[in-house]
Amino acid sequence: MKIAVDAMGGDFAPENVIAGVALALQHSGGRFEMVLTGIADKVQPLLESHGLAGKVELIDTPDVIEMHESASVAVKTKQNSSMVRGLTLCKEGKADGFVSMGNTGAQMAASLLVLGRIDGVSRPTIGSYFPNLAGMMMIFDVGANVDVKPEHLAQFAEMGSIYQHFVFKIDKPTVGLLNIGEEESKGTDTAKQTYKLLTEAHRAGRINFTGNIEGRDILKGKVSIVLCDGFTGNIILKFGESVPQFLADVFKPAMMKEIQAGKLSQEAAGTFSKLLKETLRNFDDEEYGGVPLLGVNGISIIGHGKSSAKAIMNAIFRAEEMAQHRINERIAEALKVSA
Amino acid sequence: MKIAVDAMGGDFAPENVIAGVALALQHSGGRFEMVLTGIADKVQPLLESHGLAGKVELIDTPDVIEMHESASVAVKTKQNSSMVRGLTLCKEGKADGFVSMGNTGAQMAASLLVLGRIDGVSRPTIGSYFPNLAGMMMIFDVGANVDVKPEHLAQFAEMGSIYQHFVFKIDKPTVGLLNIGEEESKGTDTAKQTYKLLTEAHRAGRINFTGNIEGRDILKGKVSIVLCDGFTGNIILKFGESVPQFLADVFKPAMMKEIQAGKLSQEAAGTFSKLLKETLRNFDDEEYGGVPLLGVNGISIIGHGKSSAKAIMNAIFRAEEMAQHRINERIAEALKVSA
Repeated sequence: MKIAVDAMGGDFAPENVIAGVALALQHSGGRFEMVLTGIADKVQPLLESHGLAGKVELIDTPDVIEMHESASVAVKTKQNSSMVRGLTLCKEGKADGFVSMGNTGAQMAASLLVLGRIDGVSRPTIGSYFPNLAGMMMIFDVGANVDVKPEHLAQFAEMGSIYQHFVFKIDKPTVGLLNIGEEESKGTDTAKQTYKLLTEAHRAGRINFTGNIEGRDILKGKVSIVLCDGFTGNIILKFGESVPQFLADVFKPAMMKEIQAGKLSQEAAGTFSKLLKETLRNFDDEEYGGVPLLGVNGISIIGHGKSSAKAIMNAIFRAEEMAQHRINERIAEALKVSA
Repeated sequence: MKIAVDAMGGDFAPENVIAGVALALQHSGGRFEMVLTGIADKVQPLLESHGLAGKVELIDTPDVIEMHESASVAVKTKQNSSMVRGLTLCKEGKADGFVSMGNTGAQMAASLLVLGRIDGVSRPTIGSYFPNLAGMMMIFDVGANVDVKPEHLAQFAEMGSIYQHFVFKIDKPTVGLLNIGEEESKGTDTAKQTYKLLTEAHRAGRINFTGNIEGRDILKGKVSIVLCDGFTGNIILKFGESVPQFLADVFKPAMMKEIQAGKLSQEAAGTFSKLLKETLRNFDDEEYGGVPLLGVNGISIIGHGKSSAKAIMNAIFRAEEMAQHRINERIAEALKVSA
């Protein structure tokens, strides 16, 4: 197995990327090889300083897609960019998956353009990990599709269920439709129509639909997959990511006051801060590293622009999992049956 | 001034309502009178046990609108319900505001039917209080309008700004449009169109629009008003409300472990639990009690079905504030000018 990584993607590229690649190789015990796409003059010295020269393949790609560039234009005009070349390696069978921390819009556009869609898929979707009382679940979609039709959402549910079944080993992942009430009659027209399609898919045994869930149920761990349009999903995801910092910001001064009043020891406060951080760790995207773009005919893992080396290592492992469990083949098979 | 309260509304009615009315009278220092609508046989004994008999007017209304009844049907067929009669008192000038903890859908429908809309208002909106680093802000809409047009959102922004200006004494409340990116070009077609309308309203001096905000900005206190469709707003609101319980649920076992390991004293753990609760208090709707339905031609405050007596007292104070600051007249004036 070989994983391709965009050495130029992200706010701290190529430094963090090479550090992440080094970590991944160190922790993977030789399960896969790696190939980097990027500006050789910048990447080669870093490979050398990490002792990776010769151990990791490097493909020189002089073009760079900037973080705020128009995605579709960049993808078409910058064929020799780290992103387009990395995906092309997958297309040509020279790599089994691609990981980038670069411009997300460009990665979606390039993945669609270079890899194409799996037969039967209407729209690819980005599913993100999210913490809950049961440990972890996923939200589909979190930004690839701001306007969705019911049939798109039903397909996201099916692709997400396959992903979770094979990657998380969950027998029949539960799917909840995010809505403003539990009753079938609640919400937008899209929500009502989606409810019907999900019920049909459930009866056909393609998904395990448990009904509508509300905003207050997300963290309770009621379902394995929260289904919503990419607009709502993106806002919930980013809101959730901001919770730990908010708590730290409101909590620190409150603790300081107690310490000054002699009601709390410095030591106890330290224990508490540590606990709070650990408890909320799952809100941090560093833990999962990157999220899958499901529905494209190849593996494309999307990482956060601010990814640390550890996050990048984890994103690489996400690509490995998808390849190992042949998620895309299974999606293609399922959609062939349901067509 | 006289505030009407639905004695039958809410999961713990009429007990909690009468207790809330008693609290409100106790803390208001005679600033306003109160009138209750409800089933006299059930309410009168409670008034007596609270020493309120003769001090609070009671109007006997035998019909009851149930929590899960179809709103529009109930409102038309149950003219002699506590909800319809309470709103009718406002319509007839016999009360200055109405508060209910009952069926929210029915309250919206009844408010529209009985009170009508303020001239120039396309759609009434529910704005909810929400905590942030700056203390508190409001989200418009949180469920009254699941499908919105850009012109509706622009009007919510204007009504919300007037409310905040007079009730919160904020000079020019900042308005942020909730979106999946900061750039004007981001999001759904509705979001893009709304951005344009808000920019125009800003230039005309009607609102103080500061641009798009993302999910991660909500808690940061960047704006006084977060503007979004009622679907997204409802989900964010309920998600936020669930955060304190989630933290308690994940945090308690983590603290217990530290106590058992001898790394934390029972006393310090108690201090933390208290701090955590206080810090997150603003996520609890008990503190604000009820939210205004803006745009109807009268004052209708919507409370949570599970409201405590304290929450009901606070909801009554919200009605008083709206009457005292003549919010509806000011909205009518502003919309006349902008028409």
